[in-house]
Amino acid sequence: MAELNTESTTPTVGVALLGMGTVGREVLRILGEAEQDFTARIDGRLEVRGVAVSDLSKPREGVDPALLTDDALGLVKRDDIDLVIEVIGGIDYPRTIVMAALNAGKSVVTANKALVAAHAMELADAADASGADLFFEAAVAAAIPVVGPLRRSLAGDKVNAVMGILNGTTNFILDAMDKRGASYDVMLAEATELGYAEADPSADVDGYDAASKAAILASLAFHSPVGFDDVHCEGIRNITADDIAAAKAAGCTIKLLGICERLVDEESGDESISARVYPALVPLSHPLATVSESFNAIFVIAEHAGRLMFYGNGAGGAPTASAVLGDVVAAARNVVHGGRAPGMSTYANLPIADFGAVRTRYHVDMTVQDRPGVLAEVASTFAAHGVSIKTVRQEENVDGARLVVITHHATEQALEETVDALMQLEAVKNVRSVIRMEGN
Amino acid sequence: MAELNTESTTPTVGVALLGMGTVGREVLRILGEAEQDFTARIDGRLEVRGVAVSDLSKPREGVDPALLTDDALGLVKRDDIDLVIEVIGGIDYPRTIVMAALNAGKSVVTANKALVAAHAMELADAADASGADLFFEAAVAAAIPVVGPLRRSLAGDKVNAVMGILNGTTNFILDAMDKRGASYDVMLAEATELGYAEADPSADVDGYDAASKAAILASLAFHSPVGFDDVHCEGIRNITADDIAAAKAAGCTIKLLGICERLVDEESGDESISARVYPALVPLSHPLATVSESFNAIFVIAEHAGRLMFYGNGAGGAPTASAVLGDVVAAARNVVHGGRAPGMSTYANLPIADFGAVRTRYHVDMTVQDRPGVLAEVASTFAAHGVSIKTVRQEENVDGARLVVITHHATEQALEETVDALMQLEAVKNVRSVIRMEGN
Repeated sequence: MAELNTESTTPTVGVALLGMGTVGREVLRILGEAEQDFTARIDGRLEVRGVAVSDLSKPREGVDPALLTDDALGLVKRDDIDLVIEVIGGIDYPRTIVMAALNAGKSVVTANKALVAAHAMELADAADASGADLFFEAAVAAAIPVVGPLRRSLAGDKVNAVMGILNGTTNFILDAMDKRGASYDVMLAEATELGYAEADPSADVDGYDAASKAAILASLAFHSPVGFDDVHCEGIRNITADDIAAAKAAGCTIKLLGICERLVDEESGDESISARVYPALVPLSHPLATVSESFNAIFVIAEHAGRLMFYGNGAGGAPTASAVLGDVVAAARNVVHGGRAPGMSTYANLPIADFGAVRTRYHVDMTVQDRPGVLAEVASTFAAHGVSIKTVRQEENVDGARLVVITHHATEQALEETVDALMQLEAVKNVRSVIRMEGN
Repeated sequence: MAELNTESTTPTVGVALLGMGTVGREVLRILGEAEQDFTARIDGRLEVRGVAVSDLSKPREGVDPALLTDDALGLVKRDDIDLVIEVIGGIDYPRTIVMAALNAGKSVVTANKALVAAHAMELADAADASGADLFFEAAVAAAIPVVGPLRRSLAGDKVNAVMGILNGTTNFILDAMDKRGASYDVMLAEATELGYAEADPSADVDGYDAASKAAILASLAFHSPVGFDDVHCEGIRNITADDIAAAKAAGCTIKLLGICERLVDEESGDESISARVYPALVPLSHPLATVSESFNAIFVIAEHAGRLMFYGNGAGGAPTASAVLGDVVAAARNVVHGGRAPGMSTYANLPIADFGAVRTRYHVDMTVQDRPGVLAEVASTFAAHGVSIKTVRQEENVDGARLVVITHHATEQALEETVDALMQLEAVKNVRSVIRMEGN
């Protein structure tokens, strides 16, 4: 693996960098600036021996042109490469390259949440078979250490829930809607202009980015295989300024949450996993409610550790590069000293719960007829489906009365059936929105 | 090292537990309850083969009496012990035992902040010499992962500052003083009654406990040896209800902070380390200001990761046991699979800065004569020592006028000289308090 540098006894670790986007450029810059620190921390010298890019004709500042190649597959198989940094993005293409690297026994550090969420087990098996390491701290919330803490620090505990603000773009939008009373469309436009949102904002606003991260967090937290397709996912496109105002009236704000929860069947004691992403009301007193702008935060509830929170920059070139390079140091130390990081631990192998079985609270916002007896009809519809009401708020409105019901915990199935029945009532003109309520 | 269990191919790791206090009992309880999880996560079985206590005559629930011994030194040297958990407390006695264990090649997991802060390098050298692991996540802020993140996750970054609420007892007292306007003595009595404070509260209220943790954090953050004696330490005994009220008037609260900072000489560019513990005003908008009751939080500023915060239970039997057992899994995996955790990294070997060179802001609260010209005299005294004033607040008082000055950044030395000069002024009746201001 690591060869001896002829000029000294310091071993050298050959590195291939795949991708020269924002993160790749930062990785190269920091490696150059802090070379001596890396050597001291690794007890070995990192040498970038190849940089794979898709377009060789594009000018690339800060990199020796002789290192550039468009043959990523050939690069990772080279004998002088010990460690591969994958910061390309996408799924199918990097999957081929990363699998080739792992199969060839090269350790891989990736920031690619979509790849890990889609193919974690395949990658982990390949790493196990060849004895290579697979690291992906940067795939969740960039520089906020959460993969490491779940994998290592909490390895002696039992995690019962992980709940987080996992996407900076949507938090920026929701936070600004809350603070300025602006509409979703106005804030999305501003987020795009500021570079927080992509031209096609779907990955962010439809919750897919957060869902990939939730899948990864759930796998780690519950020692079970959880993939992107196992995550129930709803985005924030339908959240209106009116919803945010209603949340405020209830002492809450609205956040897009990734939630990973251990469910326990009350009768059998059988455990299962719920992983879900949706916008939810969060009480202003909850630590997640104070997370502003594009920051991320992850709240962990463990049996013995209690409630923990991790907070910081969840995106951006430098923070992502920081997480990548922390993993690079660990992977390179293993190349130099031997040893291997713990692989994916999926021994618990808990099943994914049916979404209908998930229990949470609901904020149901309706327009109803403005006449006596309506509240009684609505209340008995909730009761008929076993959904218990916590608070009711009624206000007059131009087209009737507005009725906001906050429920106690109920299953998704019971709530859905309740809403179907409400819509059949003549008294209910329409159900304006149903938003979950978390964090109590 | 690990021997094969004759009944299966699962290797067994022999464990010695030193200490059966609150943490030791929790460790044993959790090991018993979650035995199968530990086996799966380690790929090996943990077997507690001896428990050392100081008093064999005391009844010990939940432990096989045959395992009890009062010969800790003999226990850790036994051939069937691979891994030692030290949760005794104190310094000299556990030092002897832990050194013997490390010298004999047994990996050690300790929760003992005083021991690590006093003798980290000696212990690390012994571990390096024998190839054993030394883990101490539980020594700082119990279950909040911070040793791991600094050692591993941020290994590719440059940490510039670590600032934290590292002691739950003093945070409970200061938080209650702030919320209820109560005096220090009243809240200390309540903290003692609730079991937050010891009968002799000195380790907490004089800042020694936080200073041990600050020493450990500074070593990790700056890759340099920093011991307990290198930490400037002031406690909270002198903080009055009046100080807290003045802090509120300035939009702040008072927290006991542990601060580890990389100082850079403006002319030479030479770097040094400041590690200090003192009560300080923190703006209400700062994340640390919201940390209530006995919670702990650690704020890290790194060059690339930016601002990170870690929050949770910083003390207690179960949270401390959680951190201990996370380390036990890592240490046991290394016993089973080979490999070694990174040792103490002190290559940067930065010197400790003179406390007089530390720069911060100050909240100076004085009683002055109530006559024209006093403010001018006071202001020129600050100016004469190069200390620039940011705000002045003056109010009438029974025994003259109260004058509160908040400064811009100045060195400790300049501030001390200013205060000495102020006390010489006839206009200044007394300097009621000087409290630093952090977090801007």
